Amino acid sequence: MASHAFWSLGAENGGESDGQSPITEVEKSGDGAEKRDAESLNCNCSTKPCKCSKTNLGFSELYSRDLLPALDGDLKTMTFLQEVVDILLAYIVESFDRSTKVIDFHYPNELLQRNNWELSDEPETLDDILISCRATLKYAIKTAHPRYFNQLSTGLDMVGLAADWLTSTANTNMFTYEVAPVFVLLEYVTLKKMREIIGWEDGRGDGIFSPGGAISNMYAMLLARYKMFPEVKEKGMSSVPKLVAFTSENSHFSIKKGAAALGIGTESVICIKADERGKLIPSDLERRIVEAKQKGFVPFFVSATAGTTVYGAFDPLIAISDICKKYNIWMHVDGAWGGSLLMSRKHRWKLNGVERANSMTWNPHKMMAVPLQCSALLVREEGLMQSCNQMQACYLFQQDKQYDLSYDTGDKALQCGRHVDIFKLWLMWRAKGTIGFEAQIDKCLELSEYLYNKIKDREGYEMVFDGKANYTAAPKVTATIIVITRLPPQHTNVCFWYLPPSLRYVEDKVEKMKRLHKVAPTIKARMMEYGTTMVSYQPQGDKVNFFRMVISNPAATFEDIDFLIEEIERLGQDL
Amino acid sequence: MASHAFWSLGAENGGESDGQSPITEVEKSGDGAEKRDAESLNCNCSTKPCKCSKTNLGFSELYSRDLLPALDGDLKTMTFLQEVVDILLAYIVESFDRSTKVIDFHYPNELLQRNNWELSDEPETLDDILISCRATLKYAIKTAHPRYFNQLSTGLDMVGLAADWLTSTANTNMFTYEVAPVFVLLEYVTLKKMREIIGWEDGRGDGIFSPGGAISNMYAMLLARYKMFPEVKEKGMSSVPKLVAFTSENSHFSIKKGAAALGIGTESVICIKADERGKLIPSDLERRIVEAKQKGFVPFFVSATAGTTVYGAFDPLIAISDICKKYNIWMHVDGAWGGSLLMSRKHRWKLNGVERANSMTWNPHKMMAVPLQCSALLVREEGLMQSCNQMQACYLFQQDKQYDLSYDTGDKALQCGRHVDIFKLWLMWRAKGTIGFEAQIDKCLELSEYLYNKIKDREGYEMVFDGKANYTAAPKVTATIIVITRLPPQHTNVCFWYLPPSLRYVEDKVEKMKRLHKVAPTIKARMMEYGTTMVSYQPQGDKVNFFRMVISNPAATFEDIDFLIEEIERLGQDL
Repeated sequence: MASHAFWSLGAENGGESDGQSPITEVEKSGDGAEKRDAESLNCNCSTKPCKCSKTNLGFSELYSRDLLPALDGDLKTMTFLQEVVDILLAYIVESFDRSTKVIDFHYPNELLQRNNWELSDEPETLDDILISCRATLKYAIKTAHPRYFNQLSTGLDMVGLAADWLTSTANTNMFTYEVAPVFVLLEYVTLKKMREIIGWEDGRGDGIFSPGGAISNMYAMLLARYKMFPEVKEKGMSSVPKLVAFTSENSHFSIKKGAAALGIGTESVICIKADERGKLIPSDLERRIVEAKQKGFVPFFVSATAGTTVYGAFDPLIAISDICKKYNIWMHVDGAWGGSLLMSRKHRWKLNGVERANSMTWNPHKMMAVPLQCSALLVREEGLMQSCNQMQACYLFQQDKQYDLSYDTGDKALQCGRHVDIFKLWLMWRAKGTIGFEAQIDKCLELSEYLYNKIKDREGYEMVFDGKANYTAAPKVTATIIVITRLPPQHTNVCFWYLPPSLRYVEDKVEKMKRLHKVAPTIKARMMEYGTTMVSYQPQGDKVNFFRMVISNPAATFEDIDFLIEEIERLGQDL
Repeated sequence: MASHAFWSLGAENGGESDGQSPITEVEKSGDGAEKRDAESLNCNCSTKPCKCSKTNLGFSELYSRDLLPALDGDLKTMTFLQEVVDILLAYIVESFDRSTKVIDFHYPNELLQRNNWELSDEPETLDDILISCRATLKYAIKTAHPRYFNQLSTGLDMVGLAADWLTSTANTNMFTYEVAPVFVLLEYVTLKKMREIIGWEDGRGDGIFSPGGAISNMYAMLLARYKMFPEVKEKGMSSVPKLVAFTSENSHFSIKKGAAALGIGTESVICIKADERGKLIPSDLERRIVEAKQKGFVPFFVSATAGTTVYGAFDPLIAISDICKKYNIWMHVDGAWGGSLLMSRKHRWKLNGVERANSMTWNPHKMMAVPLQCSALLVREEGLMQSCNQMQACYLFQQDKQYDLSYDTGDKALQCGRHVDIFKLWLMWRAKGTIGFEAQIDKCLELSEYLYNKIKDREGYEMVFDGKANYTAAPKVTATIIVITRLPPQHTNVCFWYLPPSLRYVEDKVEKMKRLHKVAPTIKARMMEYGTTMVSYQPQGDKVNFFRMVISNPAATFEDIDFLIEEIERLGQDL
C-alpha cells in the first residue's frame, strides 16, 4: 500500500472499490506480531500484570488490534494499560515536584519538528503509542505543578482524577437514565445540593452540567428570553421586540459571545460602569435600564458577576436583585469563578443576594479544582429548561419506557450527547466533604491575602487598584459607609505591576507607561523559557499590561508565593 | 460539627464568621490517620506500587487530604490510584465478557436506595471512595460489551481509553497554545487530515472539536448566517431579513434546536420530504426554496444529512450541492453519524459531493468508536469562524505573546474553556492508521448486512423500508435507473419490526398496529431486566414502534448478531 493518503484514490469510481479487503491488509502488515506464541506471554508471577510479562510482551511487535476485543487480548490489554498508567503515575509525582519545570517550552514550529506527530495510513506499534504518550506529556504544561498559576483552573485533585479515569472507562452519555443510570442520579443529587447551598428552598429548581461557563451563561440568556417571550422558540427573534441585556464592563466576554450567537447582537449588551475595584455600579445599571426602556427596548437579562475574571470582583447582588425585581428582568449570576465561595462560611457573604437570582453559573472546575470540564448552570424555576429546549426526539426520549421518564434529562440540553462531567465532582465531594472544599478555598484566599500583603508596599510594585473599597453590597455595612483602609482583594485575584529598577524613577509618564506595558509580557515569556512558573497578564481599559495572579491550585504554599515574587524580580530586574 | 448542611448557618451574619479555622477541623476529624507512622508505609518490594504496601496503607484510615499534594503523599497517591486502576482493569475485562450482563438494571428509586449517594459536610475515607467507584461501575451500562447496540456510540477502544486517561491527567484547556501546546498542534494536524479526506484542496479550511454533533451543527448554522449577514453579530436578528433553513424531515433534531437557540425559530426550519429510505428529495428542496423566496424569505442554510439517526440514510449530496450553488445557500453536511464512512474506500462514495459543502459535522465518537466526546466541525472557508465568534478577550488572547498567535485557536469557539477531545482520536489514528479505522468501519457494515440478510425473509420480521432503493445520488448510476433489487441499508442501521407469533395473522390492521406498537418497548424492557443486550426502538412518522439496530461496536461479531435475533424471539414470543 502506498504511504500517501488512499482516500483520494478510487473515491470517484463509484464505490465497491477494487474488491481488496482492507482487513487482510491489516493482518498482513502485522505479520510478525501475529506469529508470536501466545503461550510465551504467560509467567509464573502471583500478581498480574507484572513487569516480567510486560517485558515478554514486546510492545514493539504488538498493535492496537492485539488488544481487547481481540481474542486472548486480556493480558496484553492489561499490560498495555498498566504501562500507560505507570507513565501517568510518574508524570503525576513529577508534576508536584517543585524541582521540575512547569513547562518545557518550544515554539510551535519547533515543537512540530521535535516528534513525529503525523497521521498515516499504516498503524504504529504499541511501542510507538507509548512513545507518543511520553512525548505528549514531556511537552505538556504541568497544570498540577504548585507554581502553575496561569489560569483560573489549576491543580490536579487525585480523587477527581481517579473519577475522571472511571468516567472515561464507563464511556457513556448523559442523555437518558437508560444509558447513564448512576450518573443521571448523581447529577440530580449534586445539583440539588448546589441549589441548597445557593439558598433556594429545599434545593428546588433545575440545572445542568454544561461544557463550560460560556455555554452555561448562554443557557441563562436563552432561558431569560424564552421566559419573557416563549414564542421566540418557534418564531425567532423577528417575533419579539428589540431586547437588551446588561452586564458590567468587567464581565466575562461570554455574555457578548452568547448574545451574538443567540441573534440578540453584541450591541444589545449594555455594559454597565464598574467601580475602581471592578464591581458593577447599581445606580448606573438602573439609569441604563430606564434609558433603554425610554428608547423602546425591552430589558430582559441582567448578568451580575460573582468573581470577575481579571479583578475577582463581586458585583453587589442584593442591590442588583432589587433593580431586577423592580423592572421585572431575569437576574443571572455568573459565578463561574467566584461561585465556589459559597462553600466557605468565611467568604460566602460576598455572594449575598445570590438566592434572589433566577439562574447562576458555577464552575467547580475553577476554584474547587475539579478536573476540566465541570460547569453547572443552576436555575430557580423548575421545568423551564425542558420547555425551552426540548424537541422530543422519538428515538431517544420514548414515552413508553418502563421507568420514570423524569430521569431522561437530556432534552433540556442544547446538546444531544453530553459528556459525563458529574462523577469527578461528586466523588471529590464525597472524599472531602463540604468542609474539605471549604478548607481548600479558604487556603487559596489566605495565600492571595499573603501575596497582597507582601507586595502592597514592596519597592517596585504597584497595585492595580489601591484597595480602598466601597463595601455597599456587604451585609451589616450600610450603604453610606466607605471603608477607607486598604483591604485585600475579595477573591484570589491579585493584580499588580512590577516596575524594574530602571523604570521606577522615570518621570515622563508616557514613556514610563510605554515601557511598563512591555514588562509583564517579557517576564512572562522568560518564565516560560525557564519553565519555572506561569502567571497571567493583560491590559485592561486604559491600564497597561499588569500581572493577574490567581490562586486556585491546592498545591500552592506560602513558599510558592515567595518564589513567584523572587522569580518576577530575577527575570525582570534588567528590564 | 453538625452533620446537617452548614452553609445556611452564618450566611446572614455578614461574613468573617466565627473565627474558627475549618482547616483545623479537617485535621481534627482525620485524627487517626494523621498519627500513623509514615515509615510503616515502606516495604522491601522491588517494584512499586506493590500489593503489600497497599495492604499496609489501610484506606479505611486514609482521606483524600493524605494524597498529593500532601507531604509524603507520593506512595499513598500511587497506591490509591493503582487500586482504582485495578478496579477499572477488572471492569474492562468483564465488559468484553459475553457471559456478563450489559446492565444490572434497577429503577431510579430503587437505585437511589441501593447505595449511599448523598453528599455531606464530612469527608469519607478512601475506602468509601473505592466502594463508591465499585458501586458506580456495578450499576453502569457496559458500553464496551459486545452486545450493547443501544446508541450510535458504542464500544470501548483501549488506545482511545489510554489517551483519555492521559488527557485527564494533563488536565488542561484548549484555548491557547500557551496552556495546551501539544494538543493544539494535534488538533491542527488532525483537522487538516480530516479536511484532506473530505477532499478540500491541500486540507485547507478551518474547524474545531466541539462538545457534540448538536453543537457542531449549531456552529454551522451560525457561520452560514454570519457569512450572509456579518452585521448580525453586532446588531442581531432584527438587522437581517427573515431567514429560512432547510433540512430533511428525517434529519437530526439538533437542527431545529440550533435554530431555536440562535433566534431563528423552529418554524423557519423547513422540513423537506424524504423518500422511502429516508433520503432528502432534491426536487422538493428546490420547490420549497423557490416557494420561500417568493414569500420574501431568505434561504441561508441547507443541512443535508449523511447518515440519518434512525434509517442511516445518506442524502444525495451532489444534487443538493447543485441546488445550493444555484440559489447561493450555505451547504452543511451533518455527517455526525455517517461522516466516518469517508475513511472507507468501499463506502465513501455514499458521501460523494461532500467536498462541495461549506461545512461538515463528523463525530469520530460514533462510527470510529473514539471515546465520548469527540465531534468535529469542518469548515471550508478559512478565517470565518474566527471573525464570527471572536471577542478578543485581552486576558487570554494577548497580542504581545512571544509565539505565533495563530495557534491561539480558542477565540473561534463559542466556548471559553474547551475540553481536550483531540488526543484520543489522534492516538487511535496513530495506533490503527487510516486502514485500521477503515477495517473497523467495513466490519460493522458487513455485520449489519449480515443482520439484514438474516431477517429480511425470516418469519416474524418485517423491514421498515423494503430495500428498493433509488440510487440517483450514487456516481456511475444515472438518475433514471431505479435499482429494484433489494439492497441492504447504506449505513449500519437496520430498522425492523418483530411480530410475535400471536400477531402474525391478525387481520384487523388497526388492532395489529396497536399491538405491534407495544412489542418493541416490551421486549426492550425485558432485555434490560435480563441485562443480556440493548437495542433501540422508536416510532417514526406514521410507523409504529420498530427496532433500530445499529452497529458501531468493534467488539461485535456475527455470533452477537445471531444472539440478538434469538434474544428478541425468546423475549417476544409470548407477546
